[in-house]
Amino acid sequence: MITSPLDQLNLLKRGAEELLVEEEFLERLKTGRPLRVKAGFDPTAPDLHLGHLVLLTKLKQCQDLGHQVLFLVGDFTAAIGDPTGKNATRPPLSREEILVNAETYQRQVFKVLDPQKTEVHFNSTWMNTLGAAGLVRLASTHTVARMLERDDFGRRYREGRPIAIHEFLYPLVQGYDSLVLDADLELGGTDQKFNLLVGRDMQKQAGKPPQSVLTMPLLEGLDGVAKMSKSLGNYVGFNDSPDEMFGKLMSISDRLMWRYVELLSVQSLGTILDWRVGVANGRNPREIKALFACEIVTRFHGGSAAQHASESFDRRFSRRQLPNDLPELAVPVPPEGIGWPQLLKLCGLVSSTSEAMRLFRQGAVRVNSAQLHDPASPPPKGESLIVRVGKRRALKVTLT
Amino acid sequence: MITSPLDQLNLLKRGAEELLVEEEFLERLKTGRPLRVKAGFDPTAPDLHLGHLVLLTKLKQCQDLGHQVLFLVGDFTAAIGDPTGKNATRPPLSREEILVNAETYQRQVFKVLDPQKTEVHFNSTWMNTLGAAGLVRLASTHTVARMLERDDFGRRYREGRPIAIHEFLYPLVQGYDSLVLDADLELGGTDQKFNLLVGRDMQKQAGKPPQSVLTMPLLEGLDGVAKMSKSLGNYVGFNDSPDEMFGKLMSISDRLMWRYVELLSVQSLGTILDWRVGVANGRNPREIKALFACEIVTRFHGGSAAQHASESFDRRFSRRQLPNDLPELAVPVPPEGIGWPQLLKLCGLVSSTSEAMRLFRQGAVRVNSAQLHDPASPPPKGESLIVRVGKRRALKVTLT
Repeated sequence: MITSPLDQLNLLKRGAEELLVEEEFLERLKTGRPLRVKAGFDPTAPDLHLGHLVLLTKLKQCQDLGHQVLFLVGDFTAAIGDPTGKNATRPPLSREEILVNAETYQRQVFKVLDPQKTEVHFNSTWMNTLGAAGLVRLASTHTVARMLERDDFGRRYREGRPIAIHEFLYPLVQGYDSLVLDADLELGGTDQKFNLLVGRDMQKQAGKPPQSVLTMPLLEGLDGVAKMSKSLGNYVGFNDSPDEMFGKLMSISDRLMWRYVELLSVQSLGTILDWRVGVANGRNPREIKALFACEIVTRFHGGSAAQHASESFDRRFSRRQLPNDLPELAVPVPPEGIGWPQLLKLCGLVSSTSEAMRLFRQGAVRVNSAQLHDPASPPPKGESLIVRVGKRRALKVTLT
Repeated sequence: MITSPLDQLNLLKRGAEELLVEEEFLERLKTGRPLRVKAGFDPTAPDLHLGHLVLLTKLKQCQDLGHQVLFLVGDFTAAIGDPTGKNATRPPLSREEILVNAETYQRQVFKVLDPQKTEVHFNSTWMNTLGAAGLVRLASTHTVARMLERDDFGRRYREGRPIAIHEFLYPLVQGYDSLVLDADLELGGTDQKFNLLVGRDMQKQAGKPPQSVLTMPLLEGLDGVAKMSKSLGNYVGFNDSPDEMFGKLMSISDRLMWRYVELLSVQSLGTILDWRVGVANGRNPREIKALFACEIVTRFHGGSAAQHASESFDRRFSRRQLPNDLPELAVPVPPEGIGWPQLLKLCGLVSSTSEAMRLFRQGAVRVNSAQLHDPASPPPKGESLIVRVGKRRALKVTLT
């Protein structure tokens, strides 16, 4: 059991981008009282994925250390949306939609957080009471120049791209939420740093102790390149089945695995160090990946589902046993004949013949369990072939 | 009686700085319906002076032409003041103070406007209903870049002087007032042009016909240099006595007189042209000044008070009769003797000996009704001297 303030500090800093201001926050931890840890959520996109889990894992750590988590639903802004209509992802939401979304959100969030140790707040509660006059007063606490210091605002202004004035008000609303909630710490992605600091300012100006700010990196998607997002398809969703989760996590690169472990695993720092040392001494990273995938599936679906997913994955891929339900396809050979790349494309196993060529070069194409290196050899006719591309795509094909 | 739309247009443009957009406004005049003419007032400085009369005179002309004047009390912003506290002239006012100020304001304003033809509105009525969400929506109608186009904002931003964000909201509130009131025309000082145009934008965005905008120049004070203002002391107040008004107006330069006539007189254009032609042909401008002073005093105190003020002024200054209550001063001569410039300064008739020298050169110093041109001649001792500087300063002095 971790209890010392310094141990708590180190645990909370794990995987984090930045903690501001560390000394101040340590002093608060030393008081021994449960700290108020705030994180805000926009009830517009209720399908959560592992990108969201980075922050939620950190919140869960706070709960496990005995602190009070404040789950802030930004329904005030969601109800307004982007009135300029330029941002299609921010249509104004009705009260009903917001409540449904918030409900969906909480159902997913409470797969990670302990609902008993979570206060849920809606900021419309105080924003609707504040009135136009109160919002004017909020707006008086910050200068235009300070807002234009925010990276994206500054860039847009310099490039002559429009910034509507209400966009300056949203960070102030977020800051005011912290003031109202008496937050000791606010968590957010690195892209939120400016807004989190506004909360700090606002508490200071009101003569209250300013919150500390903990920023978490944005999680890369399964491709290891772009930020994880539903629209890019490179995600593991909270609602994915155990098999999907396990399979997707086993498909990531070894390098990305360490990143995921750092940001998502709740194993002790000692355990993770053991893993790293093991791999450095020749242990197969695949084993670590399986342990990590098990951990994640366990958090969402429980231990036995994770066990089952792991075994099923092993059967299908690791031991090269094929699942019984492999899809079967009969492909008529065109008069001019057909080569392997065309055949893979025709079966939908690759999206282009050039992708097929790349996979051949990488040795990622197997026919009846043997690597196929020569794409120029003609595929045999009339024979049922088990064709596998990479680890997760497989088919039975017969050329007719 | 002026009735044709074009005649109305020309009357309203008289003395004005700019009318936007003239063609549009002419079309509205042609409809023949009473137009809604808005002007906003800040209920923070309830001592009105001739600087305010410029706008009020224009509003009165509108009333006389049969249009509807909307007198908008900006109590919403007055109740907030300048929350940054940087602007000492904008402390937040309580509801009671605002109502008292608005009352004082109206009492003065209705010395000029016809209360029967004036709608009085308080913008807190709709601003308090609007709420924080409504204000966010208002803020979405304009961009930061557009606001920074306003002269003073742009300059302050470039010079690194702070602009608090709420300062961007006040023009939007003013614009929204126009939208709510369905204004056809808004009047304001030249310094208000940007804000008046915001109202135009806001009506357009709401799919309504945009108001026209009429800007009036700022009136110079009695010194002919700075803008008329109470704090500079160069003003004629609505509450000044008939004698004060008359005397102050007679003290202005001939050049400034024409400016005042242009902006404040409601004499017909024909009459004013006669005056100009007369002076060009040798008529003493003093006579025009007296006619104009009479007109102004009449508007505030009635015809007989004006008549009385005019006669009293003539008695005192023009016919060189001295009022009976001239202050008397005994000045002991210092051992080293005293010259005229020092004496005038000692008596408080001038603020410096160099001012005295200038007045001597201008022939503005009289002793016992005779101009004194030689400041080097020693003032006689033991004799009661009537010393007059300019038209309005006089004393009895005895050197002892």
